[in-house]
Amino acid sequence: MEGKMKVAVMLGIGKMGFEERDIPKVKDNEALIKLEYIGVCGSDLHYYETGAIGDYVVNPPFVLGHEPGGIVVEIGKNVKNLKIGDRVALEPGKTCGHCEFCKSGKYNLCPEVQFFATPPVDGVFQEYVAHEADLCFKLPENVSTMEGALIEPLAVGFHAAIQGNAKIGQTAVVMGAGCIGLVTMMSLKAMGVSKVYVVDLMEKRLKKALELGADRVINGSNSNVAEEIGKLTGKKGCDLVIETTGSEIAASQAIDITKKGATIVFVGYSKNGEMTLPMSIAINKELTFKTVFRYRHIYPLAINAVSTGRVNLKGIVTNTYNLDEIQEAMDYSISNKADIVKTVIRVSEEK
Amino acid sequence: MEGKMKVAVMLGIGKMGFEERDIPKVKDNEALIKLEYIGVCGSDLHYYETGAIGDYVVNPPFVLGHEPGGIVVEIGKNVKNLKIGDRVALEPGKTCGHCEFCKSGKYNLCPEVQFFATPPVDGVFQEYVAHEADLCFKLPENVSTMEGALIEPLAVGFHAAIQGNAKIGQTAVVMGAGCIGLVTMMSLKAMGVSKVYVVDLMEKRLKKALELGADRVINGSNSNVAEEIGKLTGKKGCDLVIETTGSEIAASQAIDITKKGATIVFVGYSKNGEMTLPMSIAINKELTFKTVFRYRHIYPLAINAVSTGRVNLKGIVTNTYNLDEIQEAMDYSISNKADIVKTVIRVSEEK
Amino acid sequence: MEGKMKVAVMLGIGKMGFEERDIPKVKDNEALIKLEYIGVCGSDLHYYETGAIGDYVVNPPFVLGHEPGGIVVEIGKNVKNLKIGDRVALEPGKTCGHCEFCKSGKYNLCPEVQFFATPPVDGVFQEYVAHEADLCFKLPENVSTMEGALIEPLAVGFHAAIQGNAKIGQTAVVMGAGCIGLVTMMSLKAMGVSKVYVVDLMEKRLKKALELGADRVINGSNSNVAEEIGKLTGKKGCDLVIETTGSEIAASQAIDITKKGATIVFVGYSKNGEMTLPMSIAINKELTFKTVFRYRHIYPLAINAVSTGRVNLKGIVTNTYNLDEIQEAMDYSISNKADIVKTVIRVSEEK
Amino acid sequence: MEGKMKVAVMLGIGKMGFEERDIPKVKDNEALIKLEYIGVCGSDLHYYETGAIGDYVVNPPFVLGHEPGGIVVEIGKNVKNLKIGDRVALEPGKTCGHCEFCKSGKYNLCPEVQFFATPPVDGVFQEYVAHEADLCFKLPENVSTMEGALIEPLAVGFHAAIQGNAKIGQTAVVMGAGCIGLVTMMSLKAMGVSKVYVVDLMEKRLKKALELGADRVINGSNSNVAEEIGKLTGKKGCDLVIETTGSEIAASQAIDITKKGATIVFVGYSKNGEMTLPMSIAINKELTFKTVFRYRHIYPLAINAVSTGRVNLKGIVTNTYNLDEIQEAMDYSISNKADIVKTVIRVSEEK
Repeated sequence: MEGKMKVAVMLGIGKMGFEERDIPKVKDNEALIKLEYIGVCGSDLHYYETGAIGDYVVNPPFVLGHEPGGIVVEIGKNVKNLKIGDRVALEPGKTCGHCEFCKSGKYNLCPEVQFFATPPVDGVFQEYVAHEADLCFKLPENVSTMEGALIEPLAVGFHAAIQGNAKIGQTAVVMGAGCIGLVTMMSLKAMGVSKVYVVDLMEKRLKKALELGADRVINGSNSNVAEEIGKLTGKKGCDLVIETTGSEIAASQAIDITKKGATIVFVGYSKNGEMTLPMSIAINKELTFKTVFRYRHIYPLAINAVSTGRVNLKGIVTNTYNLDEIQEAMDYSISNKADIVKTVIRVSEEK
Repeated sequence: MEGKMKVAVMLGIGKMGFEERDIPKVKDNEALIKLEYIGVCGSDLHYYETGAIGDYVVNPPFVLGHEPGGIVVEIGKNVKNLKIGDRVALEPGKTCGHCEFCKSGKYNLCPEVQFFATPPVDGVFQEYVAHEADLCFKLPENVSTMEGALIEPLAVGFHAAIQGNAKIGQTAVVMGAGCIGLVTMMSLKAMGVSKVYVVDLMEKRLKKALELGADRVINGSNSNVAEEIGKLTGKKGCDLVIETTGSEIAASQAIDITKKGATIVFVGYSKNGEMTLPMSIAINKELTFKTVFRYRHIYPLAINAVSTGRVNLKGIVTNTYNLDEIQEAMDYSISNKADIVKTVIRVSEEK
Repeated sequence: MEGKMKVAVMLGIGKMGFEERDIPKVKDNEALIKLEYIGVCGSDLHYYETGAIGDYVVNPPFVLGHEPGGIVVEIGKNVKNLKIGDRVALEPGKTCGHCEFCKSGKYNLCPEVQFFATPPVDGVFQEYVAHEADLCFKLPENVSTMEGALIEPLAVGFHAAIQGNAKIGQTAVVMGAGCIGLVTMMSLKAMGVSKVYVVDLMEKRLKKALELGADRVINGSNSNVAEEIGKLTGKKGCDLVIETTGSEIAASQAIDITKKGATIVFVGYSKNGEMTLPMSIAINKELTFKTVFRYRHIYPLAINAVSTGRVNLKGIVTNTYNLDEIQEAMDYSISNKADIVKTVIRVSEEK
Repeated sequence: MEGKMKVAVMLGIGKMGFEERDIPKVKDNEALIKLEYIGVCGSDLHYYETGAIGDYVVNPPFVLGHEPGGIVVEIGKNVKNLKIGDRVALEPGKTCGHCEFCKSGKYNLCPEVQFFATPPVDGVFQEYVAHEADLCFKLPENVSTMEGALIEPLAVGFHAAIQGNAKIGQTAVVMGAGCIGLVTMMSLKAMGVSKVYVVDLMEKRLKKALELGADRVINGSNSNVAEEIGKLTGKKGCDLVIETTGSEIAASQAIDITKKGATIVFVGYSKNGEMTLPMSIAINKELTFKTVFRYRHIYPLAINAVSTGRVNLKGIVTNTYNLDEIQEAMDYSISNKADIVKTVIRVSEEK
C-alpha cells in the first residue's frame, strides 16, 4: 500500500511529537495492519520518563508502544493464515527461529528477538505496521481490537500463571493490583485456580480487583498480610504467589505466606535490580521460585479466554486517548499512576 | 452410638433385601456418618446383574454402594478435622499408608486398599457407616449431601482430566456422554480447557451434555466423527481425548481425531478386556496414552468446583429413590440404561 | 565445490546401481559434507525389499541411507558453527521452523519435514551431501565418523528413554535386542537407570546385549518372561518397558511385567499396523503409554555420551562394506537379519 | 533384647560424655539395629559448637548423630522387609503418614517429622537403636555399613540433583566442594549429567572433587568463575547450578553463570538466613530456583548407585574414630574444617 502515515515519536524525555513516514511495505510473509488501538505499557512510560530501562537507551526520535490491535489491509504473497479485513492482535516479538531457545520452544528467550519499542527497535504508536503474519492472531467476532491490543499484557498474566503451574484446587495470592496483577488474577481464575486473593496498598486498586473477580482482597497498608492469609487458609498458607510489585517487602511476605512446597513467581522488577530475601525460610519450606520474561505460546489461549468471557479484559481500561492526544496520554498516565490501570490509544475508530 | 440400622443387601443376582445390623462403633480415628444420599454406580449395577466384575465375586449377602454423602453424628477421640453436625462427602477407599504407592502419593494404586462395595469389602447402602475421618470431607453450606454423594463419580472425571494434563488453550473431546463422560466434560471445563466436545450415539445424552456445558456435541451414529472434529479444529485435530465408553471403535476414533503429540486418556473398560488399536498411527503421531484407576487427591478440589458453581453436579441426577425402594431403583436403572444418567438413593431427608 | 560424485541408487526392488551426479552446491546456511560412513537402517532394507513403507513409495532411481557421518569440505557464507575439516554427524530431517510443532520445540512432528531417504526425498548413499549447518554436529576428537553415522539410531534410543522419563532408581526392560533395542539399553544405562534387562528370542542378540552392558537378559523363547521379571524385581514388576519389536506378544508381556503406575514406550511397528492389547489390565495398573517418532534435541547429548564412554556405539557394528559393495551389503543384510545388528557403508577412508 | 548400651551424649557446648542406657525395645513395626558406623554431620558439629540451630536448641544431655549404618539384631512381629543379620542404612526421619505432605508423597515436609538429632529428638551416637523397619534399607553385599551410614548425606546430594531436574546433556556447576558439594557432584554424574564442574576456594577440596569424578574444577579464589564457565561452555552458560555453600557471593555467581531458562538449586544456608540476590537478572534470564530440605524417596536409588560403582562413597571419608573417641572426633572436626570432608564414628567392627 502506497502512502504516508502519522507516527507519534518520543523526541526526548517527557516530550512526544509527530512525524510523517511512509506506510511500510509488506514482505512475503508479512501482513500490513491498520492499527486501531494500542495499549500504553509501564515500560513505555518508563522510557518516556527516564529515557532508558537498564541497558536499553532511547535514541530519539523513537517510537514507543508494543500493545497493538488492528485490521489487516494487505498481505504478503506467502501469507496463508490471514486475509484482508481480519481483525488481529499482534504479538510484538520477532524471533530468529533457529537458536537453541527457539528450537526448544522457549522463543521468548531468543537472544536475537526484535521486540516493538525496545531500543533500538521502534514500536507502533502509529497508523500502520507491517508484521510477520505468524505473529498476527485473528480475533473472533466478539473480541474488539481494543481487547486485541490488551492481549499483550494479558499474555504476561497467563505466562506468569503457567510458569507457576497454576491449577484447580490451589489457593493463589497475587501481590499487586496494577495492570499486571489484575490480568494475572484473571488468568489464574480462567485456569480454574480455586481461590485467588489479591494484595495491594491502594484501596482503589483492590476495589478493581474485586470487581474483576478476585475472591478476596487484602490491603497491606492496614492489615497484616500473613495473618489474613493464615485466616483464609486455615493456617495452611497458600500454594502459589505471583509477585508483580517488585517490592522486597512483598517478596518477603510471599515467602512468609506460602505453604511448604509452594511456588512463588517473580514478575516485578525491583528498583535497584536486587532483592534481599529470607532464603533460609525458602529452603526450609522447600519453595520453588519461577520467573517471567515476557511470554510464549499464549496469544491463542488468551484470545479464547476473552472470547469465552472468562477474562474481562475491557475491565482494565481506565483511560482512552486519540493518537493526536499522545502527549497528554503519556503525561496524565505518569502523573496519575495510582488511579490508572491501563491507558489505551485509539488510532482509528473501529467500525 | 448404640442401636440398630437398616442395611440393604444384595441377596443374589437381581435380588435385593434388607437386614438389621448394629450401628458400627467408631475407632479413635473414625467418624460415624448418618448417611443421607448414596449414588448408584455402574459397578453396583454390574455386580447386581452378573454377580462379579473380573476377579471380584459377590458372596451374598453383600452391601453395594460406594458414593456416600451424610452427616457426622459421632467422632473418635483422635479426630480433629470434623465435628458433629458436619455434612460430609466420603472418599470410599481406605489405604495402607506405608506401601510404595501410598508413600509416593499414588495411594489409589495401594494393593491393600479397602474400597466400599468391592468384594469382599461391604459398601454403604445402609443408614450409618463408620469411616476414617481423613476420608470424610466437609461440605460447604451451599453443597448438599446429595451433591456430596456425587463427588465420587466427579472425582473420576477430574482425575481423568488431570491424568490428561488438561489445560487452558486445549481442544478436548470426550468419547461418551454417560455419567463419567459428563462429569469429565464438566471437569475439563472447570480446569479452563478452551473447547470441549462430546461424542455419543444417543441424542438424549448429547442433549444433556449440551445442557451441562459442552461446547459442541457430535452424534457418532449419524455423522462422521473424524470429519466433524476436523471441521471444528481447522483440520488440526484435538489436543486431548478422554475415552469413557470402553468401545474399540471410539478408542480408534480417538487415535484418528487427535493432533500429533496429543494425549488420549483411557477410562472405559472394554467388554472382553482387550482392544485392537491402530498403534502404528499412534506411534507416527507420537501420542501419549494415559489411564485412570479411580482417583487420588481430588475430593477437596471437586467440592470446591461444585461450591463455586463451576460444576453443575445436581444436573446429572435423573432418578431418586428411597432406601426402601432399592430393588426398584436397581431394576429400573438396569432396564433403562439409555435414559438414566445417575440414580441416587435417599436414605434420610436432609434438613 | 565443482565436480561429480558417485551415488548409489535403488533401481528397483532388490536392485542397486550407481549414478554419477553433480556434487551439490551449498546454500548460504549449508555445509558440504564429504561422507565417510553411512549406516544401513532397517527402513532402508524395507524399502529395498518391498518398495514402500506405508504410504511412502519408492520411485526409482532413489537414494537410500539416512545415517551419515563425514567431514566438512565447504561452508555457506552464513555458517558459523562449523569450519572446514570438522568431522560431523548429520541429523537427517530438515524442518520448516514455523509450524506449531517447530515453534513449541517438537520439531520431529513437523508436517513439512524433509527427511533423508523418505520418499520422495533422496538419502545419502553417496560421496557428498549439502546439508543445513544447524543439522551438522561437530564430533569431538575421540569420536569417529563411523560413530558419527551411528548417532542417528542412537538418537532413537535416547529419545525412547527420554519419552519414558527414564531415571535413576528405576528398573527398565527393553523388549528386543536388535539395533534399536541395544542402543535403547545403552541410553537407559547412560541416563543412570539402575537396572536394565533385555528380552529377545535369539541367544546371539542377547549375548550382544550382555556384552554392551545389559544387567541381565532373558530369552523369551525358553523362559517365562513375566516369571523372570517377577524374580528379578521381588514380584514388584518393572518401572519402565521400552518395546522395540513391534510384536503384539511382546507388547502384551510389557503390560504384564510392569508395576502399577509404570510407563511403556512403544517404538516398534507391528506388521499390520494394529495391536490387540489387554487394555483393562493397563487401566487397572494405571499405566502410561508413550510412543516414539524419530527424535528431537538428541544429537549433542548422544555425541557426548559416546565421547565420554558411556555408550559403546562401535559395539553395535557387525558388518562393514565399501560403497561399491552396496548391492552385497543390502542383500547380505536382508538374508542374515538374525546375525546382523548394524551394517555400515564406508564411503571414504577416515584419516 | 535385654541389656545396657553405651550412649555418647552432648553434655554442653563443646563437651561430650557417656551414659549407660537400656537397649531400646522394638515395637511391632520396628527393628533393633546394632550400629556399626555413624557419620558426623555439619549440623552435629554446629549443635556441639553453639548449642542450637535456629529455633532448635539442645537441652543436655542430648544425643547427636543421624547418619547410621548397622546390622539388624531383632525385629518386631509385623516386620516383613528385614531379617536378623541384614546390614542396613537408616533413614533418620519418622513421619506421620497422614498429613497433606505425607499423603502427596512429599514426606520430607511433614510437620510432625521426628528426625534423629534434631532437638528434642535424640540421635544415634550409641550402640543400638530401635527404628521403623520401613526406614531401614537393606544393603547389598558389596556395600559396607560405613557406606550405609553415608547414604544419608548422599541422599541430600541426590535430592538436590533431582530437584534440579538434572539430566543427560546438561552442563552443571556445583558451588562448594565440602561433603554436600562432593556427594552432589557424584549424584549428578550418576544421573548422566554430561559435564559437572565444581567451584570452591580451597585447593585441597578441589583436588578431592577431581579425584571423585568432577569434569573440571575452578578455584574461585584465584580465577574469575564467570569467565571460566564462559570458556567451558562456549559462552552459553550452564544449565544447572547447585549452590551448597550458603554464600551470597556464590549464589550471585550462580545467577551470573547460568544460561537463560536454567535452574539453580539452593542447598546451603547463609549465616544470617538472608541473601541479597540480583533478582532482575534472574527474571531477565527466566531462571528457576529450587530448594532442598533433606530428601525423600532416595535411599534405594542411592544404595544402588553405590553398589553399582557409580558413586564412590568411601571416597569422602577423611577421618575415622571409635565411639570412645567421640570427644576427640568432634573437637578435631571443628578445628580442622578445611581439611575434613567427612568424619565417621566406628561403633563396632564390621565382620
